[in-house]
Amino acid sequence: MARWTIDPPKTALIIIDMSNDFLKPGAPMELPGGRAMIPHLNRLAQACRARSIPVIYTTHAHRPDGSDMGRMGDLFRNVREGRMLSAGTEGVEIYPDIQPLPGDHLIEKRRYSAFQNTDLELILRNKGIDTVIIGGVATNICCESTAREAFFKDFKVVFLSDGNATFDLPDRGWGRIPKEEVQRYVLTTLAWGFGRVASISEVLEELEATS
Amino acid sequence: MARWTIDPPKTALIIIDMSNDFLKPGAPMELPGGRAMIPHLNRLAQACRARSIPVIYTTHAHRPDGSDMGRMGDLFRNVREGRMLSAGTEGVEIYPDIQPLPGDHLIEKRRYSAFQNTDLELILRNKGIDTVIIGGVATNICCESTAREAFFKDFKVVFLSDGNATFDLPDRGWGRIPKEEVQRYVLTTLAWGFGRVASISEVLEELEATS
Repeated sequence: MARWTIDPPKTALIIIDMSNDFLKPGAPMELPGGRAMIPHLNRLAQACRARSIPVIYTTHAHRPDGSDMGRMGDLFRNVREGRMLSAGTEGVEIYPDIQPLPGDHLIEKRRYSAFQNTDLELILRNKGIDTVIIGGVATNICCESTAREAFFKDFKVVFLSDGNATFDLPDRGWGRIPKEEVQRYVLTTLAWGFGRVASISEVLEELEATS
Repeated sequence: MARWTIDPPKTALIIIDMSNDFLKPGAPMELPGGRAMIPHLNRLAQACRARSIPVIYTTHAHRPDGSDMGRMGDLFRNVREGRMLSAGTEGVEIYPDIQPLPGDHLIEKRRYSAFQNTDLELILRNKGIDTVIIGGVATNICCESTAREAFFKDFKVVFLSDGNATFDLPDRGWGRIPKEEVQRYVLTTLAWGFGRVASISEVLEELEATS
């Protein structure tokens, strides 16, 4: 695993898709594990802001006319029909308990990876960032896709072991996979070949040691 | 899972990183499971060529001066030191038993995803391709990264359940994961959110039905 340390002037925190469609009780794709992380992610975001580390939120949203939908619509009927991830709806707003603060950034993305067809890379390069701390939902979908692409683009990835949450994978022919197993698999793959995996408290300790 | 069917004039077969560094007995990152797939992948490639479906091979190779290395070098000492994945060496040549034939394409890539900083997308768009069949090594690293990005770019992904092979993931703090489990996890995640997963024989049958 990469032994990268966190240098605050070159670091950004990216919080993926903590929106109502994934977090609100009763939401179309509710991830209760996502809500459980909120106090911890908020504490980390606060520690980042105190050190001028940019805090960047993403939300996954498609144009209501479907013009950017692509294959997403083939896979997810509720997305295709605008019942979730639809720009301009409450569903794509960041969940109230983990709101961005003035000075934070918000990126509306169309694909799982926050780098695809957004200005994320421009923002990071303009700020001289070389390290990205990644948290949010869902671990194996949008968070992992963003982590993989960050690595391809030469950012040092610090993936939060307890700051990303996911869901049980349904049986598609090879058996159902409980979310704990999915989490364990993703952390192990990312630590093998995509960067560093660390807990929120490890990152907090490292940040405190720098100030 | 997406129910996309295969339309030969709009389809390409992408064979990822079947190079000596991963396949040769005794190679630095030998994947014996990769060699076992060769007769089946060759049969599929032959069926594709017979229907004018482009067959595109990739090989992962870095410039010997390290100028394109990025974070790859931070993670893998044997890559950084040019002992594997080094352009111009025998290691990055396609393994003899699965050689490209005249008319096939070969792409030298620098990152796990074959779309990053290569002409893969140009080739596919120029040929009017909208469906990519993906096989090769390693399932969860280069093959999955390429499948994810193909989906982001609106290609219909057909990921071969028995035409991709991987390795045991070492314990990085969450336990070792045997390759069969890694394979099962990747197929289930891709079938959930990135496209269609099919066996080589399913694809062959479908191709035979079209001619």
